[in-house]
Amino acid sequence: MAVIVVKVGGAEGIDYEAVAEDAASLWREGQRLILVHGGSSETNRIAEALGHPPRFLTHPGGQVSRLTDRKTLEIFEMVYCGLVNKRLVEHLQRFGANAVGLSGLDGRLLEGRRKTAVKYVEDGKVKIHRGDYTGTVERVNKALLDLLLSAGYLPVLTPPAISYESEAINTDGDSIAALLAVTYGAEALVFLSNVPGLLARYPDEGSLVREIPIARLEDPEYLALAQGRMKRKVMGAVEAVRGGVGRVVFADGRVKTPIRRALSGEGTVVR
Amino acid sequence: MAVIVVKVGGAEGIDYEAVAEDAASLWREGQRLILVHGGSSETNRIAEALGHPPRFLTHPGGQVSRLTDRKTLEIFEMVYCGLVNKRLVEHLQRFGANAVGLSGLDGRLLEGRRKTAVKYVEDGKVKIHRGDYTGTVERVNKALLDLLLSAGYLPVLTPPAISYESEAINTDGDSIAALLAVTYGAEALVFLSNVPGLLARYPDEGSLVREIPIARLEDPEYLALAQGRMKRKVMGAVEAVRGGVGRVVFADGRVKTPIRRALSGEGTVVR
Repeated sequence: MAVIVVKVGGAEGIDYEAVAEDAASLWREGQRLILVHGGSSETNRIAEALGHPPRFLTHPGGQVSRLTDRKTLEIFEMVYCGLVNKRLVEHLQRFGANAVGLSGLDGRLLEGRRKTAVKYVEDGKVKIHRGDYTGTVERVNKALLDLLLSAGYLPVLTPPAISYESEAINTDGDSIAALLAVTYGAEALVFLSNVPGLLARYPDEGSLVREIPIARLEDPEYLALAQGRMKRKVMGAVEAVRGGVGRVVFADGRVKTPIRRALSGEGTVVR
Repeated sequence: MAVIVVKVGGAEGIDYEAVAEDAASLWREGQRLILVHGGSSETNRIAEALGHPPRFLTHPGGQVSRLTDRKTLEIFEMVYCGLVNKRLVEHLQRFGANAVGLSGLDGRLLEGRRKTAVKYVEDGKVKIHRGDYTGTVERVNKALLDLLLSAGYLPVLTPPAISYESEAINTDGDSIAALLAVTYGAEALVFLSNVPGLLARYPDEGSLVREIPIARLEDPEYLALAQGRMKRKVMGAVEAVRGGVGRVVFADGRVKTPIRRALSGEGTVVR
């Protein structure tokens, strides 16, 4: 079955209603879809309001991740599994798609390794933060997803995942989407965010990179992208395509019919 | 298939971990279970913390319900679908049961009629509150539950439900549990709360009513129960038994092995 995986980011400005309307319309045409969503900006807002403001760790590699103690994990679950997931499911239902929202805990849908000790950089020194509830997803319960897809449902998936020891773990939504796309040999993997795609000179939207042909990844113009601040996104996409995904598109989630636009090539196409 | 439906209340004092441990152990023995949970006390706490304190309406019949505007609905979803549902799923997974948490929105699992205009009593007058997101569940998507049960999952269900117009609606968890029990002709329907069962003289735990034989509902001692503040619970249980449920037990959710105790007759048994 031809599947499309769509990751909807959690940044300000993304039009969830437009995403849901577009996804539902594709679903009604018989397209099999799996949605994965974020929720970071709303998590920050709720965490502030609850007096437990977000804290972030900068890793030695340069990536930034949310420090996830148990209290943060609970807020994370409230926003991702409660607020954002059910809002998307409600929109999708209203637009006629029979959506089912699940976290990675449910049916051990997304299982992986908890990383209790996380390296981070502070004042130029590498330090270790212990007791974090974060990790990396390594396994998908494809049987459960197949059960839902075969019965005609539209799965709407969200972190947290579950560790092998059955703890909830905060995990990167982009990686989950890529793993799902590879698992299904998806014809497309679409990342919707609040910019039109990958930008050579962020945040200049005029510097949109239209295409990254992975055969030419060593060319200077692409090499720069694959090593700069976009490294993780670009290399994740390259890995997905090498893993059998038809194409990866980074596209704008602030517009009407964002998924169809992405599929028609608007944004940054990696193939 | 013999099914047991367990409703875990949302009041302070209930031991969710003990409930999960007991449910998981029954599930591992091959018992099919459906869990339904509340979350009212934590919703009140989070709503206060977010500066949107809970408000309640007293209906002409004497029942009290949460005033559910859109903002309250979002907080409700955060706590019920996010915090409480995922906590229960995580506990169950840790105790070895493959739980899947779903709200009534997911797959239109619990569908019903939205009641936009709600009558309530204030200063002795009957008034009407409009724009509420509450309602009554009338339909269960049994096909989806069967799909999960047959594949060996343990469903953990929570309000909100979904209206026929695809809006999320706050709905009574006890009624959902009763509807599910009737739908499955459950051998038992267990209500776990922070008291040992139905109390003739609330909150005197020594006044526990051991049994309500529905054939003797007209006897003065039972009639009083069926008309007092327990009316809704008692009549709900009576309806469930008349609808084909083996027995209904109101039992203590603060103790170890609360489900097994209830099934062995500790609490108030309606049959």
